[in-house]
Amino acid sequence: MTDTPTTHVVFLLFSGITQLDFTAPAQALSRMPGAVIAGVAAALDPIPTDSGFAIVPTHDFASAPQADILCVPGGHGVADALGDTATIDFIARQSENALWVTSVCTGAFLLGRAGLLAGKRATTHWAYTHLLPLVGAEPVKGRVVEDGNVVTSGGVTSGLDFALTLIARLRGDAVAQAIQLAIEYDPAPPFPGGHPDRAPKAITAGLKEHVYDAAAARMEAALSSA
Amino acid sequence: MTDTPTTHVVFLLFSGITQLDFTAPAQALSRMPGAVIAGVAAALDPIPTDSGFAIVPTHDFASAPQADILCVPGGHGVADALGDTATIDFIARQSENALWVTSVCTGAFLLGRAGLLAGKRATTHWAYTHLLPLVGAEPVKGRVVEDGNVVTSGGVTSGLDFALTLIARLRGDAVAQAIQLAIEYDPAPPFPGGHPDRAPKAITAGLKEHVYDAAAARMEAALSSA
Repeated sequence: MTDTPTTHVVFLLFSGITQLDFTAPAQALSRMPGAVIAGVAAALDPIPTDSGFAIVPTHDFASAPQADILCVPGGHGVADALGDTATIDFIARQSENALWVTSVCTGAFLLGRAGLLAGKRATTHWAYTHLLPLVGAEPVKGRVVEDGNVVTSGGVTSGLDFALTLIARLRGDAVAQAIQLAIEYDPAPPFPGGHPDRAPKAITAGLKEHVYDAAAARMEAALSSA
Repeated sequence: MTDTPTTHVVFLLFSGITQLDFTAPAQALSRMPGAVIAGVAAALDPIPTDSGFAIVPTHDFASAPQADILCVPGGHGVADALGDTATIDFIARQSENALWVTSVCTGAFLLGRAGLLAGKRATTHWAYTHLLPLVGAEPVKGRVVEDGNVVTSGGVTSGLDFALTLIARLRGDAVAQAIQLAIEYDPAPPFPGGHPDRAPKAITAGLKEHVYDAAAARMEAALSSA
């Protein structure tokens, strides 16, 4: 038998993170043989999430291990994080020696601000895909989009599909299938419309009007400022 | 316009929780209008999860709000929690006035130990369904199983389907559809086999041999002790 390699998976944590962008891929990747999960933030204080509870970072920027897989989640906190030099520097520094540079949801824009999506095919949450050219990326339809060692995924729940895809790449299909079965990932969404291509038009329109038009404008403003 | 009712959603947290059992439904339910999420543990110290990071409880057992929705997640820590009187008492006490008594994955056995599944149709993680009669429940196939105000769901990732189902029940289909679209829950698992009914037989057999035969035996022993 060959030894299982150690794979350091480094997730960025920040205030206002959409916690499932982190917790779903962390669940799958933590079961990958050899994986060591780190949740890294600017400081070690608990990170408030969007879901009413806080997560404790395992490391701060200074003490973080070098990532084999760097993963940047999204959330409403991304617009503020885009202006935080220490955060962007951490992403840029880690990416230099990471084997895989990845994002879930609007985490793509933090990769982009760090210069990692220039000329890359990429995706993000459906309500923000039109902003990807602002970081030099080419928006591509797809729940998980690969371009070289850069893997971006769609909104929130796509992180699970992303993680299993990456596990299959790193450890083979059988390992990924076993993890998928262990977490009983046999989804049965109660409605068919988890993407605007399939959702009732009124649901999409209402969500844009009440949430995403303003949120996307805020992201655009943050991306357009130096 | 009518006022949106406040709905207290109380999740039990305990050492060795499968964090996605909690974080996935918390993500969906936190976006339900009027929802207030609590993560409640015996004490306020951070709770180590199975995925390499810790979660901070919002309340301890004494300070927890009365649940409208009580939700008990699962995990390898369930076998120990079954023997913890304070935990079982908390579940029993909260359930008396909860509108909905629910579980994800092996959290069902904690509901069962508190006497809440006697004579009820229920489900749990696929590797443990045969143990449901030990708490007086009737195992039923289904990713989300309702019996009166008791709602149990299957392994780990089923918590998302459970939460959206409950949101539809409480606030209507349009609200649940909007949340499903907001979290882009349009799953695309890389493999078809997230349940033994659909997984390659060798994958299921390997997982049972290496993980679940021992884990189910440990659960059975914990359920069989007084």
